[in-house]
Amino acid sequence: MSRESADLTDVTDRLPPEADEDLEDLALREDYALAPEFVAMVIDAADRGDAERLRELLDALHPADVADLMGFLSADYREEVIAHLNPEALAEILSELDTEIREEVLEHVPSETLAKALGEMESDDAADVVDDLEADKRAQVLAAMPESERVAIETSLAYEDETAGRLMQREVVAAPQFWTVGQAITHLRRESDDLPELFFDVYVVDPAYRPVGAVAVSQMLRAAPSTPLAQIMEPVTEIPVDMDQEEVAYIFNKYHLISAPVVEPGGRLVGQVTVDDIVGVIQEETEEDILALAGVSDAGRDAGFLGIVRSRLPWLLINLVTEAIAVIVIGPFQPMIAKIVILVMLLPIVSSLGGNAGTQALTVAVRALAAKELNAANATRIIARELGVGLLNGAAVGLILGGGLYVWQHDLKLSLVVFLAIIANLFVAALGGILAPIVLDRFGRDPAVSSSVVVTFMTDFFGFLALLGIASLILL
Amino acid sequence: MSRESADLTDVTDRLPPEADEDLEDLALREDYALAPEFVAMVIDAADRGDAERLRELLDALHPADVADLMGFLSADYREEVIAHLNPEALAEILSELDTEIREEVLEHVPSETLAKALGEMESDDAADVVDDLEADKRAQVLAAMPESERVAIETSLAYEDETAGRLMQREVVAAPQFWTVGQAITHLRRESDDLPELFFDVYVVDPAYRPVGAVAVSQMLRAAPSTPLAQIMEPVTEIPVDMDQEEVAYIFNKYHLISAPVVEPGGRLVGQVTVDDIVGVIQEETEEDILALAGVSDAGRDAGFLGIVRSRLPWLLINLVTEAIAVIVIGPFQPMIAKIVILVMLLPIVSSLGGNAGTQALTVAVRALAAKELNAANATRIIARELGVGLLNGAAVGLILGGGLYVWQHDLKLSLVVFLAIIANLFVAALGGILAPIVLDRFGRDPAVSSSVVVTFMTDFFGFLALLGIASLILL
Repeated sequence: MSRESADLTDVTDRLPPEADEDLEDLALREDYALAPEFVAMVIDAADRGDAERLRELLDALHPADVADLMGFLSADYREEVIAHLNPEALAEILSELDTEIREEVLEHVPSETLAKALGEMESDDAADVVDDLEADKRAQVLAAMPESERVAIETSLAYEDETAGRLMQREVVAAPQFWTVGQAITHLRRESDDLPELFFDVYVVDPAYRPVGAVAVSQMLRAAPSTPLAQIMEPVTEIPVDMDQEEVAYIFNKYHLISAPVVEPGGRLVGQVTVDDIVGVIQEETEEDILALAGVSDAGRDAGFLGIVRSRLPWLLINLVTEAIAVIVIGPFQPMIAKIVILVMLLPIVSSLGGNAGTQALTVAVRALAAKELNAANATRIIARELGVGLLNGAAVGLILGGGLYVWQHDLKLSLVVFLAIIANLFVAALGGILAPIVLDRFGRDPAVSSSVVVTFMTDFFGFLALLGIASLILL
Repeated sequence: MSRESADLTDVTDRLPPEADEDLEDLALREDYALAPEFVAMVIDAADRGDAERLRELLDALHPADVADLMGFLSADYREEVIAHLNPEALAEILSELDTEIREEVLEHVPSETLAKALGEMESDDAADVVDDLEADKRAQVLAAMPESERVAIETSLAYEDETAGRLMQREVVAAPQFWTVGQAITHLRRESDDLPELFFDVYVVDPAYRPVGAVAVSQMLRAAPSTPLAQIMEPVTEIPVDMDQEEVAYIFNKYHLISAPVVEPGGRLVGQVTVDDIVGVIQEETEEDILALAGVSDAGRDAGFLGIVRSRLPWLLINLVTEAIAVIVIGPFQPMIAKIVILVMLLPIVSSLGGNAGTQALTVAVRALAAKELNAANATRIIARELGVGLLNGAAVGLILGGGLYVWQHDLKLSLVVFLAIIANLFVAALGGILAPIVLDRFGRDPAVSSSVVVTFMTDFFGFLALLGIASLILL
């Protein structure tokens, strides 16, 4: 549109006073992360019991930044901050908080305040919070809410966790297909109060309330008022209400969707998922994958000390068991080992190289499976390629290690043993790295979680077997 | 809105014939991934040289699915498929293709066809494609395009890769702040052809074309036509044109943005970033992190065989060097090793446990750094907690391994050595796992890429040193 001069008065009137503006600048670093200095200012104000200053500091923050702040504070200071938030501010912050912190915060908020805060939230966010409450408190809070809000939350909770039903908001804008753009806009203006605060598509529905198409709000704005909706609507991708949220995210990402209608088994429109919910899901699911690949389970930054120990110890114990089994394979070779100390010193190298090569193949396979880029149509080709890579990288690394060993020990047979063992182990690593996730995926297990233990075991077991077995053939 | 019966005629008229509908059902599995059977049908049609069938199959697919299909085909079949796409279809598919496949495909498309296809694309997507072309072809293609389109692409390419400038689309909808909703809508209807196909916010600008606020399109639709834009506009988060795309994604995720204005250093509005671009960026950046953690660099599914070998071998070689240094530490203990074969057999276990524990701490730290949840304000607390977890998990695992060893060998001193060595190594693993990413991050390196090599080296080196050193103190 045009660039013309305008009266700026009503905008400047609404700007916060200069002092607050300065606080806002102080709060965030250049990369939009919360500044440590600002956290220190909050702690200082809390220590001095300066309620006014504390409220001033909190007012300078976006709700998402208050949630961030909570993560940087210890439990005592968190309570102090929460006590200074009104229900509206609390509502905005609750849905931003990490789960562990939220559970702790919820324990300290009175039921009455919580009921008021939930009333301010969208139905899906409110349901998430209620789901986190303990049975007693949940009953108290729900009892303190108006009938209609309580029913909305209970309906949302009836859907399983991590499904489209839980992710969706029940508020949608729908129009019958015989309406024109003008009729729809008139209706929107009249019903303005009952509509979702923000929406991107108007769903066009048939008489049974099944979506038959969607009109983007921007299309509606620019179309002539006499245009029938049916003429400008686009086809929609319907999301079944029980679809896993990871699937929903995949569909949004693949087809670049902004919003999509959620339907019941009969096809009736019951809500919508919007892309801003999806951004959160993608982040959540990929973080789960990263942590699972490292065997860390899902205890986050704010888990308690013992919670973290519990989340990690099982993986170390499984690692211990598989390693112990791998060591059994060394047993029969004990007489030879006593003679060839050098060879034994190389065991960790062979096992570590195998583990690394296996993890490389594994990571690529897990990623390809998650992105649905690997299936029966190309599995053979990709497996063959991985095995080839394993052989070639094995030959390269084996040549270097065998060569280095020869310079040191001048024993050609010993170097040959090491060379062959590395090739064999990197081949096995590639085999395990590509096959373990595929097989686990086929049996409906999450390949990111279970594969690395399987692969580490395979490379250790066969690595030892290869080095000592080949040695007993060539050297004894 | 209401549910009334309506005339369905004009909708059914536009549905594809029954046969196509069946093909669409066949194409995708229940989880929206491409069905292997459908890929087989495409290969079959290509083998038989049945052009009509091939076109029929391709018509049944969404462009995103055609791009997926390309990933499942070998190079020969890809050429065959590309030959059957018109410029419009090609335009939609090019921006969906993975980089490696796209580069290969671009080599086989005539410059004239490519110029036409680029004309159909949004400026940011077209710039990405042109960026992939080799110098000769790029000149040919640009020469074949109309002046205005060429300038748009060249302007976009002037911004650095992975910045907001490259991510943004130049097409925005802006309005002066003294306009009313009614004036803006009238303008939108009149200028309909020059507007972006889809938009979510109208940016309100001052006389210098600097954004002062934004009105969501859905707000505009429901507001009374006489409402001044300045009255209903919300504050905007401005994105500097040179901001890294990872930062942009962080801001979108944090503040749940749908679109944001991109501004030049002077504050002038030059474009907008929308959330659908961000979904792609988040996926891209987290995939980079996952792959980097496993030391795989960025060669994807469709990299050539030698490309993959090259992307993985360096990490294995670094692993070999660090392992070799770690083995040097074993040297002085050779006399003892000859006596205590058992101890040596335990070396891989100690090193592997240390490696796993280190990766656990490391993964959590890398994730926390990426999510900006770890900084000077809470670093000491988190480091102390990690070290405590290392000691406690070390004691638990050491007790089990030491105990098991005692049952086998009935040597209390030997068990004590192993117990202490495991504790020491898991402490070092925790130290390395948490400190390495923090230090690398402080020096501006990507912690996801470099940390795991550092940590593996630390745990191997100190693991061997701990086991053999403690053994020489207690056993000799």
